[in-house]
Amino acid sequence: MLGRTYEKEISSAARALELVGERWSLLIVRNAAFSGMTRFTDFQKSLDIAPNVLAVRLSHFVETGIMTISDGSDGRPTYHLTKKGLDFKHVIVALTDWGDRWAAPDGAPLVYEHEGCGGRVRQRLKCKECGKRLLAEDVVARKTA
Amino acid sequence: MLGRTYEKEISSAARALELVGERWSLLIVRNAAFSGMTRFTDFQKSLDIAPNVLAVRLSHFVETGIMTISDGSDGRPTYHLTKKGLDFKHVIVALTDWGDRWAAPDGAPLVYEHEGCGGRVRQRLKCKECGKRLLAEDVVARKTA
Repeated sequence: MLGRTYEKEISSAARALELVGERWSLLIVRNAAFSGMTRFTDFQKSLDIAPNVLAVRLSHFVETGIMTISDGSDGRPTYHLTKKGLDFKHVIVALTDWGDRWAAPDGAPLVYEHEGCGGRVRQRLKCKECGKRLLAEDVVARKTA
Repeated sequence: MLGRTYEKEISSAARALELVGERWSLLIVRNAAFSGMTRFTDFQKSLDIAPNVLAVRLSHFVETGIMTISDGSDGRPTYHLTKKGLDFKHVIVALTDWGDRWAAPDGAPLVYEHEGCGGRVRQRLKCKECGKRLLAEDVVARKTA
């Protein structure tokens, strides 16, 4: 379905989705990023994901530089997010903000907090030039090429 | 692959992805949100997407309240993002920021600008309580239920 043209349709957003956008992938990265999970069995239990699916996802994360793999104290592998992986927290918070506003009829099931003071975390758009906080309608796209 | 448990794995982020996370969907919403596209033929030409695929995506957007459909001046349908759809701009900017940093070896192909002053737009995480700008490592998750 995603053919030649999609490949040419250069978009950083689409590239980001390709790496981490599959649904199980998002939940795995979320648990690693916000709950500090590192072990195969912990991901498996927490998500009740099929072991073969989980194995493929974790290998893919290692291949694409989102996680590193190393031996744990018991000799079993542990998976740790790289800077690239941890940086995806920004996207998860943005997705969650949107989902909470528009797709969570029973309220937010999970909240993101500032570890320092316990306050709720929100995503904001900001102009680098004038420093203003921006609303969605203030933002336009410009092709660079 | 996404069974019963995934359904129970309540996550606003995953819900958001379900509605708009598929790759073509993201590109359609992006073109509607940032380029003001409203017509079937414009989406079709700009993305070179198969008409049947585009038709399914647009119908789905109308069903899930991301777009409304109405008759254009020539009697052909036009598609407009609702508030829910426009609000997804926040997520697209976050995805793009991440993609630019980690998956755009040739530089950012598209930039988001503040319409008012032309400055680049960036996503930031902020604490609602203390007002501080937060880094990824300052954010933790807490289950509400």
